[in-house]
Order: sequence, then structure tokens, then C-alpha cells
Amino acid sequence: MPYIPLEDHLPGITGLLEYRKDTADPIRELTQLLLRGPSTLTEGERELIATVVSHRNECKFCTTAHTAAADILLGEDSTAAAVKKDILSAPVSSKMKMLLTIAAQVQEGGKAVTPESIANAKAEGATDIEIHDTVLIAALFCLYNRYVDGLATITPTDPTFYQGLGKRLKDHGYNRLPQGYDHLKKNG
Amino acid sequence: MPYIPLEDHLPGITGLLEYRKDTADPIRELTQLLLRGPSTLTEGERELIATVVSHRNECKFCTTAHTAAADILLGEDSTAAAVKKDILSAPVSSKMKMLLTIAAQVQEGGKAVTPESIANAKAEGATDIEIHDTVLIAALFCLYNRYVDGLATITPTDPTFYQGLGKRLKDHGYNRLPQGYDHLKKNG
Repeated sequence: MPYIPLEDHLPGITGLLEYRKDTADPIRELTQLLLRGPSTLTEGERELIATVVSHRNECKFCTTAHTAAADILLGEDSTAAAVKKDILSAPVSSKMKMLLTIAAQVQEGGKAVTPESIANAKAEGATDIEIHDTVLIAALFCLYNRYVDGLATITPTDPTFYQGLGKRLKDHGYNRLPQGYDHLKKNG
Repeated sequence: MPYIPLEDHLPGITGLLEYRKDTADPIRELTQLLLRGPSTLTEGERELIATVVSHRNECKFCTTAHTAAADILLGEDSTAAAVKKDILSAPVSSKMKMLLTIAAQVQEGGKAVTPESIANAKAEGATDIEIHDTVLIAALFCLYNRYVDGLATITPTDPTFYQGLGKRLKDHGYNRLPQGYDHLKKNG
């Protein structure tokens, strides 16, 4: 049971974003900019960063939700599964292996990011802004994972919930749903 | 040396908030709402949460900056020093001891927050929104600390830098400085 009163039909982050809407707005905006805004990283690649960090923080809600979003965006379900298991052997570009390695270091802590991992990413063609965004996305999911689990929100066990949420994240991104989309609310 | 090109005269978070201004805006807005918006926790108490988390993440820039802000807001420099050393023996209210304990658990990870620590906080009079905000502030500083150290930003050693930054955080909060305040920019 959550530590604070959240709506029963809104599990994980979804209930928290309704609990305090004024703080939810900039959280949504930051996420939309980083995961759906203009970038040389694809939306699928950015969802993989979210997935790797959430997985390493053992946040089941966020891991399952962003795995679902990545799977839908990538059109297959083997890549997200592989990066959670082992980044370096996963079927992603050499640049993405290096960026995901940086993200995994950010999950441990800011000081865990090494000059070597940055040099490796640059050697594989990563730009400064890609490195910046990787660090900030990883840091943002360290916020999300703590917010979701630190207040003991509900983690649905039904896979269809996450399929619906992943589809919503692909179709509508992270912005608040406009009026008339209330039927989608239960999916985040 | 920072891992990405940041302006030399903008150390720590200040250079990052100039590097990508579109993402900086919601980060600033979220921080302003949580640390300076209406709350039953004082601004000084909320800066103590930021200080404890930053200290435990070993982020020297953020710890020194928010210690300076807390000291100025509280009008003395013993409380922030004490909460960094030992929360339970620090000269803060029983409620704040319990909320700072929750913040320290969030720093470890979302799942580290225990039902007991929540029950203790509620027994000392903490409200649901105070618990919510404590968790979200702690999670936000887990983002900040990783952003600042994950990109190897510069940490000034001159104490007067942090005095200036702390005063700015008291007088102007976390919003972007309006036009005409450029002389304050070097202090964050």
C-alpha cells in the first residue's frame, strides 16, 4: 500500500503525477524534452537509457513501462531485454553501448562516471550533447525510480497494463493528456 | 575539467543550466516549487533536506551551496553542520529528524524507505504532503548530484563563492535571473 493516499486506479508514477499536479508539470515537461524532443538519438534509444537505469535501480514499475515503450518504438522485444542483461553484448550500435555504459555509471553515482567511459563514447562518435542528454536522462530516472518506490506505489502485475502504458508513451509522449483522453488515464 | 564544454566562469550546476536552457527551465521550476513554494516546511528545513542528500551523495558543489543557503535562511551555521554529521542528534524538531531520515533512505534508493520510517514521521506529526515533498526533494537532489558530478563540473574551493550563491538562493530562489541581474550570474 502506498505511504500516502493515491488513487487506486493510478499505479506507479501515474498516481504521483495526479497527487501534486504543480510539481508534475515540470517533471513531465523535462521528460518530454529529453525523451521526445529533437535529438540525434532515436526515441527508442532514449527509452533504452531509461530502461537500463530503472532496471539497475530495481524499480519494477519503471523498468516494465519503459521496456514496453522501447519495444514498441523499436518494433521488437529483444534489444531492451538484452541491454538489461549485458550492455556490451546487446544488439545496439557501438556508440549506444558506450552511452548506456555512462548511464549505468550515473545510476551508481555522479562520481562513478569515468574519463575513460567519456573518451570511449566520443571515440565511437558520441557528441557532447548526446553525452549531456545521456547523463541527464539517467539522472532523471534516478529521480523517478526513487519517487515511485520511495512512496511505495502500486506495481501492477498484469502485462497488458504496461502494453497500454507503453503504447500511450509512444503515441502521446510524456505530456499531460488533453481533455477528452480521460479513458487513457488509467494507463498513465 | 568538465566532460563537455561549459563556460569557465559558471561552475557546478550553473554551467549546466546555461548549456541546455530548455531542459534547465523545468528543472528550475520544479526546484522553485519544492524549495520555495508554499509549504508547512520552512525554506531552511527544505534546504536541510537538499544538504543531507547532497552530502550523502558526496557532491561537494551541491553540499556546500545548500549548506550556505540553509545557514543564511536559518541565521546560524550549526544546524546544517549537525544534520550532515548525525541526523538524530541534530538540533531540529522530532518531525524533521524523521523526515531527514526518510530523505537519507531515498538517497540510498527508493526501496530503502521503510514503513517504519514513514510511521515514525507520521507519529511526529508529518503530513502526507510533507512526506511526499521530502521524498521528491530527496529524489530531485539525487538527479542534481548526478548531473553535476556525472559531467565533472568544476567545484570552486573559495568559500566566498558559496556565500554569494547561498545569498542568491535566499534572495532570488531557483528561477532564472531576470534581465539586469547578469552581475549575479557568476554566483549561479
